[in-house]
Amino acid sequence: MPSASSPAPSESYHTQHSPFGAFASFTLGLVDSPGGFGHALRGPARQNLYIGFRASTKTDWNLLPYFTPPKSNETAFIGEAAVPQAPKNYRSLRPGDYDRHLGWASDTWRAGDNRFTFSLLTPFSRIPDPAKLRGEEARFFLAPLVCGFIEYDNRQGKTPAELIFGVGEPDLGLHPLSDDASPLAGFSCGTDFGYATKPGKNVELRQGFDVFTPKFRDYRGLLVIGGETALVFTVPAGQKKRFPLALGFYNAGTITTGLASSYAYTNHFADLRDALAHGLQHHARYTRLARDRDAELDRSRLNADQRFLLAQSTHSYLGNTQLLWHRGKPLWVVNEGEYRMMNTFDLTVDHLFFELEWLPWAVRDTLDLFVNRYAYTDRIRISDRLVPGGLSFTHDMGVMNHFTPPGRSSYECDNVEGCFSHMTMEQLLNWVLTAVTYAEKTGDRPWLRRNKSLLLACAESLHRRDHPDPKKRDGILKHDTSRTGTHGWEITTYDSLDVSLGQSRNNLYLAVKTLGAWVLLENAFARLGLKKDSADACATADLLASSLTKKFETDTGFFPAVFEKGNRSRILPAAEGFVYPLYLDYRDAIDPAGRFAPLFDQLRQHLTQALKPGVCLDATSGGWKMSSTSRNTWFSKIALAQHVIRELFPESLSEAALAADRVHADWQRQPGCGAFALCDQILSDTGVTCGSRYYPRGVTAWLWLLEK
Amino acid sequence: MPSASSPAPSESYHTQHSPFGAFASFTLGLVDSPGGFGHALRGPARQNLYIGFRASTKTDWNLLPYFTPPKSNETAFIGEAAVPQAPKNYRSLRPGDYDRHLGWASDTWRAGDNRFTFSLLTPFSRIPDPAKLRGEEARFFLAPLVCGFIEYDNRQGKTPAELIFGVGEPDLGLHPLSDDASPLAGFSCGTDFGYATKPGKNVELRQGFDVFTPKFRDYRGLLVIGGETALVFTVPAGQKKRFPLALGFYNAGTITTGLASSYAYTNHFADLRDALAHGLQHHARYTRLARDRDAELDRSRLNADQRFLLAQSTHSYLGNTQLLWHRGKPLWVVNEGEYRMMNTFDLTVDHLFFELEWLPWAVRDTLDLFVNRYAYTDRIRISDRLVPGGLSFTHDMGVMNHFTPPGRSSYECDNVEGCFSHMTMEQLLNWVLTAVTYAEKTGDRPWLRRNKSLLLACAESLHRRDHPDPKKRDGILKHDTSRTGTHGWEITTYDSLDVSLGQSRNNLYLAVKTLGAWVLLENAFARLGLKKDSADACATADLLASSLTKKFETDTGFFPAVFEKGNRSRILPAAEGFVYPLYLDYRDAIDPAGRFAPLFDQLRQHLTQALKPGVCLDATSGGWKMSSTSRNTWFSKIALAQHVIRELFPESLSEAALAADRVHADWQRQPGCGAFALCDQILSDTGVTCGSRYYPRGVTAWLWLLEK
Repeated sequence: MPSASSPAPSESYHTQHSPFGAFASFTLGLVDSPGGFGHALRGPARQNLYIGFRASTKTDWNLLPYFTPPKSNETAFIGEAAVPQAPKNYRSLRPGDYDRHLGWASDTWRAGDNRFTFSLLTPFSRIPDPAKLRGEEARFFLAPLVCGFIEYDNRQGKTPAELIFGVGEPDLGLHPLSDDASPLAGFSCGTDFGYATKPGKNVELRQGFDVFTPKFRDYRGLLVIGGETALVFTVPAGQKKRFPLALGFYNAGTITTGLASSYAYTNHFADLRDALAHGLQHHARYTRLARDRDAELDRSRLNADQRFLLAQSTHSYLGNTQLLWHRGKPLWVVNEGEYRMMNTFDLTVDHLFFELEWLPWAVRDTLDLFVNRYAYTDRIRISDRLVPGGLSFTHDMGVMNHFTPPGRSSYECDNVEGCFSHMTMEQLLNWVLTAVTYAEKTGDRPWLRRNKSLLLACAESLHRRDHPDPKKRDGILKHDTSRTGTHGWEITTYDSLDVSLGQSRNNLYLAVKTLGAWVLLENAFARLGLKKDSADACATADLLASSLTKKFETDTGFFPAVFEKGNRSRILPAAEGFVYPLYLDYRDAIDPAGRFAPLFDQLRQHLTQALKPGVCLDATSGGWKMSSTSRNTWFSKIALAQHVIRELFPESLSEAALAADRVHADWQRQPGCGAFALCDQILSDTGVTCGSRYYPRGVTAWLWLLEK
Repeated sequence: MPSASSPAPSESYHTQHSPFGAFASFTLGLVDSPGGFGHALRGPARQNLYIGFRASTKTDWNLLPYFTPPKSNETAFIGEAAVPQAPKNYRSLRPGDYDRHLGWASDTWRAGDNRFTFSLLTPFSRIPDPAKLRGEEARFFLAPLVCGFIEYDNRQGKTPAELIFGVGEPDLGLHPLSDDASPLAGFSCGTDFGYATKPGKNVELRQGFDVFTPKFRDYRGLLVIGGETALVFTVPAGQKKRFPLALGFYNAGTITTGLASSYAYTNHFADLRDALAHGLQHHARYTRLARDRDAELDRSRLNADQRFLLAQSTHSYLGNTQLLWHRGKPLWVVNEGEYRMMNTFDLTVDHLFFELEWLPWAVRDTLDLFVNRYAYTDRIRISDRLVPGGLSFTHDMGVMNHFTPPGRSSYECDNVEGCFSHMTMEQLLNWVLTAVTYAEKTGDRPWLRRNKSLLLACAESLHRRDHPDPKKRDGILKHDTSRTGTHGWEITTYDSLDVSLGQSRNNLYLAVKTLGAWVLLENAFARLGLKKDSADACATADLLASSLTKKFETDTGFFPAVFEKGNRSRILPAAEGFVYPLYLDYRDAIDPAGRFAPLFDQLRQHLTQALKPGVCLDATSGGWKMSSTSRNTWFSKIALAQHVIRELFPESLSEAALAADRVHADWQRQPGCGAFALCDQILSDTGVTCGSRYYPRGVTAWLWLLEK
């Protein structure tokens, strides 16, 4: 049951702190776990982080618990003659010893009666079209870094206090930035990542086997064969001091295969040193940006749990963003978390709302790349015959920095019944919905006009998948693509749930999404002056709505998840397709008493009954479940469903349903999900992730900010 | 005791298969362990390798045991709805099921009644000076690849047999080479490494969660989100077929920091595809080269254990080589195994003999870089006064692809008593010995002339470290560099042994090495027409030899390891310093009845007594120990000592001492060392490594080939 009234368990979760478009994260936050700098990884890196303070040089260090007990690597060099001493003069703070607050663009820790503050800042903002970004503006928006600071209030102190920020990476090794002719105080790992502060008399570099009590020091006090590094800051008695930090990434050269490209930021930054220096130079501006974001979220009507969920989601989204450069042009990719599939269309259509606010050009560029490289025309199966199908798009564009060949995804296989099959109908809908939503929201009429014939081809493709014979159409997908082979079937994005959401044909979720697509096409065609096509889309939408109403089980008051074989699963994404007309404020389509009133009435009944414990509220946890017959639930889709239901079906929300924000937030705040930052696939009874870790899609929660 | 007569235990050891100068290895051979492609790593990579055969498509695969049981990564995608099936239709061959033979340039496995053969070829050869290499010759010598083949003799078979060569790398992901417009059949991991064969109708690509029984196949039969890849070859009934393999590495762009440089091979190869295609195109020539090397070792007088030791050592040496390019010129580095220190001078002086045979320019270039960037002039401590010292050189040039600042090593610290202190005297000797040996062996007179003043400065520096006052000199180092600080002392390369070898002052090993240096200077100065300096060097050598004879303990018949504080450790490197005059065949210096006859007599007594069980033969294993008072022994130095003793003190060799080759080979063939390919530091009783893993220095064993 919802745990809104029970005391919150102590938090332990990783958060990705990421530059925009660098597919890189500085990850930390899981208690007693390492993290640190990672590029293109499936999950957190494994560096020990030493972040803390001590009130005087005579006392032990107090460290945030983001490391495993450091061992000295001295033995490897000295052999058995050594008596290596692992560092001892520290204590690892327990969660009760510090406060952590995750803002929309900041992550801040306080300890030692608030004398100690450590904060990481992710200054995300509206990114101008990179194709037009030049000079200092390009550097500002594309800098591959995150900022932060470390602070101690020693105004009441009688002795100098010390602060530490350090990273242990014995496998790769770090070196002082000064060795690369950088004026900064800090360390770099090869040419790939590093951290820095401004040099000064209160800043000391440490490197060796033990940064707390260095045993070996060379002419400058370091031992560069040691994998442990740190900046140690002194705060004189009677003073309060804040030291800026810049954490940077730099990956030069060709990053992707299949389609060779490099990071866009390499056009604007010479190397890591350049990026770190820029970060410290513009530290105040980046800090203001982060403060603006934090304030926006704090000003919102979201409750604390919702704010946390959106903040955590945004951090993981940014960690998966990748702005590449290919033949003189931007090439935009969002990676799919632990799977690292590239521009998975199922995610694009969900990131849509967030991206239209912050980087609308990314939506356009992704649509264009789907058209130019990842479109195909198929045939469809009717009984055992193959007949012409129509236009559609692949599920993704590749995986792990590899672009798949034109017209082919990394995921879709032939002759498969279930996961890894094709998603032809789903991706066709995704293109239509993303395209029209983009064009309508941004008012990009020239783009809409350029894609007129494509939208018409999409409409025709939708029709034919219903039935090639117009007389036999009811608006619902009934025919699988020939790409599924001789015995496979098309699947939906909900492929890893049970069959209630896995099959495309006669699928409730997909049918309502199809309805959304026809409503958007109706408007787009009207905008394009295609009156006949607009009327056809309108008529198809009405036909489909009418067909849907006939699927309603009057005996149970539910829709079945699949209109086949007596399926009786109950699903929350029943109304997902209405998010697009809702977002575009197409009043006629979203008026409960309007054009689709009968369908709305049925959906309201369906959702009201579904949002009860034991149906689509988990009987144990109280969390929302996508399907009554699967305990695998997806946070990003919960967020989307919450938005649609709160806006269009508020009567369906029971107290239990409303209380679930706390449940969903606790899932992410606990190690079951938190070990991998934002997780999407979660077992609804235990709150433990079962897939889609380190995942970008939680930014569907951004829709919550649109609610009145 | 020596185990020469006991049955050999079954072998389990990794071997590095490495291109020349790419600091990269394809490592395999440890039973039930992964390995594979690694670049700049401290030890083996962690990829599963699938290498084997089956007599028909109906039977299970027989695989060499170089993997951990493969798991399907399907669950991460499917969630709990999945019933992922780990591959089952294989058996992992046990060591008794296959024969493995490591040649000097090949590693070959046979199984299935010799029907199955798999071989990796490391075609090393005399490398011309890279500064002068051009065009096709440069491509041939610098290609970042190793070759191999896989074969099945199905002439007696009634059904098609199959062969497999595959790599599982789920963290990084691989993709088919054809996606990068390569005509080859194979896979690439990003742009960094890959493997290929020639395409043909008997070659099939596999990729997915399971390469043995692929469950999911896309339009071309692959699933590129799967981290498991393989080439599967068909051998028709009645035929014997051999398929070539090329394994390649490619690391573009700036590789080092401190001194920015890239791999030399990137000047000659566009990318990984180019390298792999080259490897298959020139497969026959590379194979011939490897066969030539194998035959040379097989023709030698070395016994089987010695051959194995030299072969294993050469493989690990090549894996640590790194030919870089800096401002239009070659930049040569040998990395120091797991420590990855760069051009550690203690290693350079030992690699010297091997390198003068195979790549003499590398010796010259390293000497020049020590002069141009890593030389310094110090002061020395007399009582508590600092007085001018002289020229010397740093211990190394950096660590983990980072070049340290001029005049500074990554290793040497101040105010240290023991490991991590400075090695000023040791490195001064190393420069003198390496320089004169290079110039005399190659006959590079212009280089010798260019370095005349430097050699004179070295001689003066040697003198002053004995004593600034000529009247107080006896040839033995007595004064530490000021770099050791207020309370440190200079150490020798044997720093991780006990004090018997760790202190430089009054050190037997270092004193005899100093004698070697003066002998070489005597000759070099004569060659340069510096009669007076030659005479001085001659006199100093004689003085030092005479001083040494006075340190002999007539009561015990031993030299003490350190001429201080009643030290009574007994060490084998007592005669190490004679390897240089021996190598250069300076008859007067190495004639037992000649100029140093009294010293030779004493050394013979010392060594004869030392080479007894319980002294410098380990009482448990029979292996050679560097010091009677440390169980940490070093293979590379054993090999060197064996050479010197067999050539100059053959009477000292007891049966037990002679039988130890088997012990030393077994250490490396067993997992105690074999888990890290060639290991240098070994506990002499257990044969388990205690440092210096994945190490290049074993090529001192190359000296054995010079023995008559």
